[in-house]
Amino acid sequence: MTDSPGIMKGVFAAVLTPLKSDGSPDDARLARHCRWLLANGCDGLAVLGTTGEANSFCLKERIRIVEKLAEAGIPGSALMPGTGDCALPNAITLTRVAVKCGAHGVLMLPPFYYKNVSDDGLFAYYAGVIEAVGDSRLRVYLYHFPQMSATPISYALIERLLKAYPGIVVGMKDSSGNFENMKGAAKRFPGFAVLPGSDDLLLPMLKEGGAGCITACCNVVSALAAEVWRGFHAGRDVTAAHERLTAARKTISAYPLSSALKAIMARITGDDAWLAVRPPLVVLDAAKRAALFQALDGIGVTLPKAA
Amino acid sequence: MTDSPGIMKGVFAAVLTPLKSDGSPDDARLARHCRWLLANGCDGLAVLGTTGEANSFCLKERIRIVEKLAEAGIPGSALMPGTGDCALPNAITLTRVAVKCGAHGVLMLPPFYYKNVSDDGLFAYYAGVIEAVGDSRLRVYLYHFPQMSATPISYALIERLLKAYPGIVVGMKDSSGNFENMKGAAKRFPGFAVLPGSDDLLLPMLKEGGAGCITACCNVVSALAAEVWRGFHAGRDVTAAHERLTAARKTISAYPLSSALKAIMARITGDDAWLAVRPPLVVLDAAKRAALFQALDGIGVTLPKAA
Repeated sequence: MTDSPGIMKGVFAAVLTPLKSDGSPDDARLARHCRWLLANGCDGLAVLGTTGEANSFCLKERIRIVEKLAEAGIPGSALMPGTGDCALPNAITLTRVAVKCGAHGVLMLPPFYYKNVSDDGLFAYYAGVIEAVGDSRLRVYLYHFPQMSATPISYALIERLLKAYPGIVVGMKDSSGNFENMKGAAKRFPGFAVLPGSDDLLLPMLKEGGAGCITACCNVVSALAAEVWRGFHAGRDVTAAHERLTAARKTISAYPLSSALKAIMARITGDDAWLAVRPPLVVLDAAKRAALFQALDGIGVTLPKAA
Repeated sequence: MTDSPGIMKGVFAAVLTPLKSDGSPDDARLARHCRWLLANGCDGLAVLGTTGEANSFCLKERIRIVEKLAEAGIPGSALMPGTGDCALPNAITLTRVAVKCGAHGVLMLPPFYYKNVSDDGLFAYYAGVIEAVGDSRLRVYLYHFPQMSATPISYALIERLLKAYPGIVVGMKDSSGNFENMKGAAKRFPGFAVLPGSDDLLLPMLKEGGAGCITACCNVVSALAAEVWRGFHAGRDVTAAHERLTAARKTISAYPLSSALKAIMARITGDDAWLAVRPPLVVLDAAKRAALFQALDGIGVTLPKAA
């Protein structure tokens, strides 16, 4: 028996972080949401990513979020917390916490303040975290999201990291929307898990050896994504499910994702406490919520029932 | 008698943060550097800005940097620490520390992870800090640096903040390099201190009512900038000094600024400990250092003597 984590595969939600009325993370509601996601098609939970507003929380809040999920019994085999940060010491601390809590993977943004930094600098950052954590259970998924981080993860950097840390650096979430980039990475680095960050690329990437997807919309349409993933692996024709998934993504992403998805969760649960976001994000106003719900109804997306 | 801070004016260095051999901030060396800057033409010290690698330090390190400077006797009237952060709680904590330490101003980046955020979201962020700190001694200088933060500070946002927090929001560092933007801000908002982030715009902005400058190069050429600032206010022709200052800026900014300026400090002090930077920045290699020093010598820039 070994507790060495394997490659994480399947359908991942980029999990929303619900807030309490004082603006602090609502640990209990988050744990409920995670359990509900696992019951609704999710294989994994990418908490504290872009959708989860990770960078809007201080280190203490982020540590607490991961520890409370572990305490609530969310299995480490499903947990892929975001642990990247502009400050190396923060990334080290968070990654240590994630490994200690049994997370089978961490999703690591590059430091994203300085622009046009060198691969040498990014390598030093990732190596700094991996060396400081120094734990054979660590599995790092790189986070390529140039539109948000403005700091792309190049093939040359991946190659260097795979060579230096084989079995530790094991995959990448690619939120660039650039299919050629993710296809190329899957082809160039056999065994390296490539997970697109948008639902419409789930099926195309599965056909290219992709490991699954990590998406914001899987907070509410994970059942549909699971239908695609499982159907594809069972050899079924999943075109129709993928088209519905793609339509849902297109409809929801016409709005700022975290705010729109929190609005949908408020609708599903009947609880407007779900609406709250941290600055600089803003709550989706009532008119936009109505338009979003009408559009979703119009394309026939069935939202899951509340827990 | 009142301790109400006035508008901060003059020549500010965007102060470098020297590191110890273990990569931690070197508090003692930083205090010496600050005293040396004040003795070499600086009116103010914008510590923990972009040049000072603020976002590469964790909250504890940033708090310590500000507290240690105050303990070392660096006058609050010269201190303008950077306190902006992606996470509102961090920005609140740091701003409280700066005010407690007597800083006459704080330089506040907007939250810079999410892109294309609304002015409503940015207003909520700045208002959140100002309300939480709740101290009449607080003076906020907004930090407009779209090339790095990718989150511009619009005139509409400035107008709203000035209306909501008159006497608290008092100025802006404009590192956009866009002269029209800073000129427009100075014209549109009388009494609002506009400080360009690059040396070549010091004189042009002084002619438009600018308050001074906050620049990376003033870590090593503050005497030249002071000659421009004082000469201008004394009615002297400062064209020659401004040309030399501009040439120095042009030469140094051909390299990544923090690394290049730390290299120059290593040369001035004869101590290569100055070279160290935090990832994702990298140390300027020996060949580039030699080329930079040769170029600086070539344009006849006289570097100040070590303390």
